[in-house]
Amino acid sequence: MSIPELDAGAMAAARAELDRKTKPRGSLGRLEELAVQLAGIHGPVEPRFAVVVAAADHGYAEEGVSAYPAEVTRQMLSNFAAGGAAVSVLARVFEAELVVVDAGVREALGDPVVRSVRIGAGTANATRGPAMSRDQAQASLEAGRELAGELEGVTAVALGEMGIANTTAAAALHAALLGVPAAKVCGPGTGLDARGVRHKAEVVERALAANAPLGADAVDVLAALGGFEIGLLAGLALGAAERRAAVVLDGFIVGAAALVAARIEPRVVDYMIAAHLSPELGHRLGLEALGLRPLLDLELRLGEGSGAVLALPLLRAALAILEEMASFEAAGVTDAGR
Amino acid sequence: MSIPELDAGAMAAARAELDRKTKPRGSLGRLEELAVQLAGIHGPVEPRFAVVVAAADHGYAEEGVSAYPAEVTRQMLSNFAAGGAAVSVLARVFEAELVVVDAGVREALGDPVVRSVRIGAGTANATRGPAMSRDQAQASLEAGRELAGELEGVTAVALGEMGIANTTAAAALHAALLGVPAAKVCGPGTGLDARGVRHKAEVVERALAANAPLGADAVDVLAALGGFEIGLLAGLALGAAERRAAVVLDGFIVGAAALVAARIEPRVVDYMIAAHLSPELGHRLGLEALGLRPLLDLELRLGEGSGAVLALPLLRAALAILEEMASFEAAGVTDAGR
Repeated sequence: MSIPELDAGAMAAARAELDRKTKPRGSLGRLEELAVQLAGIHGPVEPRFAVVVAAADHGYAEEGVSAYPAEVTRQMLSNFAAGGAAVSVLARVFEAELVVVDAGVREALGDPVVRSVRIGAGTANATRGPAMSRDQAQASLEAGRELAGELEGVTAVALGEMGIANTTAAAALHAALLGVPAAKVCGPGTGLDARGVRHKAEVVERALAANAPLGADAVDVLAALGGFEIGLLAGLALGAAERRAAVVLDGFIVGAAALVAARIEPRVVDYMIAAHLSPELGHRLGLEALGLRPLLDLELRLGEGSGAVLALPLLRAALAILEEMASFEAAGVTDAGR
Repeated sequence: MSIPELDAGAMAAARAELDRKTKPRGSLGRLEELAVQLAGIHGPVEPRFAVVVAAADHGYAEEGVSAYPAEVTRQMLSNFAAGGAAVSVLARVFEAELVVVDAGVREALGDPVVRSVRIGAGTANATRGPAMSRDQAQASLEAGRELAGELEGVTAVALGEMGIANTTAAAALHAALLGVPAAKVCGPGTGLDARGVRHKAEVVERALAANAPLGADAVDVLAALGGFEIGLLAGLALGAAERRAAVVLDGFIVGAAALVAARIEPRVVDYMIAAHLSPELGHRLGLEALGLRPLLDLELRLGEGSGAVLALPLLRAALAILEEMASFEAAGVTDAGR
């Protein structure tokens, strides 16, 4: 693993360039920060976006933690491939290549549009022991890194996921990696009531107990509590950063993948952009731990990478501001110097 | 003035349609609210965006309330026309027609790209009496309504402005229309320090005193304290709503225009979308008074309509979700009914 440092020279040059543009210093706020980060990641390149939606099934679903039956994971995989899901529509609108990945749904789909990177036929029920073997956890990470290698020329990868019960996996990973109780990171997911949320927290506590003691090793934690799509997305984040692509995070489940990736190689966080703040309880805690501030706060709780894709226009805008705005000198505008 | 009611039937149909889409109910959060509002405004039409940047000079500038000299208004008008300003770049990136309007800079520009709707050669210094005559205030509103009539086929108009010292005019209008002290609505604008902000608040208090007593009539308040570009944008908001176009608000100065428009015809607010929350102190108060929640919070404090244009992709996304997403039935996905 060799993630390059951000290009400090390019970032300083971008900051100086932004200060010569015809606007008061810093008046484009977080768009300017984003422009500087992107300058450090990949410099002045034509933006090319991809969104990877990885799907997998989860043994947690046996515990009744979702409003939806487990079949829906596979049905939605088919919907992504057919172009009817929210992320399919948004990817079209914002010109991101949509890559749909089966990281391990219970039953393979056999759709040629779906990349099959099946680590298994869904994870085991983590309340009775590890969700997957350490080898499977490694394989999911490696599959993500390999996928990053196939996204040649992509300047930013948006991460998305689908998996019935995967907010439970994400909550368990947040609890373990942040060292907080389950109740602090369990929310309604895509449709639980208060009683459902309490039940989910109890399931997470049982998963933590069944896998105790958990050490600090991210691969072990991923194997014990995680999901195949989460491992794949963590690997994809690492692989994208190795290739100097920006990594655009979606909501809570992608946040769990980001925590895993950051535990493996902290430098990956420099490449991350938090697209939005999910109302899901644990998301804020995870982003704070990573030191990331979300760009949007639109009460999105769908997943699929929908929030990550919604933030892509801001990346496009940040790059265009840096590349295309006139300087005070070129435009003949008086500079007040602040 | 005859602003139609939003189409309640179309809004109910859009809500029902969104609930049939392959996603948990409401899981696209504020994007769904936006889709419903747009359904009520103009129904399912191909989005076509314009951004109107209106510029004018202000007598307040004589009081030393800006970090920039008054010449910059005219210089920036030229920069908008030449395509080098932030809003020029963002309008290109997000496919909005850029309309640059001289509503009354001190000295006309003579650039054929700039629409000349000059109400005067800058306003008078409001600390010594009305900024403009009541006739001029009426004329600025009427010019905006006429401009709306020329934007045939535009489904959403983003409002932008330029005018050295116009955060002072906006603060005075907020103070008068919301009935709050100047200190509650004066911020650093594009670059004042704490001392400058205190001075600005004192200038606003003097303008309020010089024009006391101010009644509730919005045209009188606009004449006393306002700017030509603010009147034009208020008229544009009213005219756009009359023609069933969405009105996308930028920051604090456009917020003042929105307050004026809403005082003239409250129904215009149904057509408004608050693009972003400016760090400028009074902006939040104004939006709260209008009952609007901003979509973005990116610490933008440039104006020009830059924040309004940055929110246009969200309108595009909301419309696409409504038009293009598959239903549970069509996609063969099990609906949990919540």
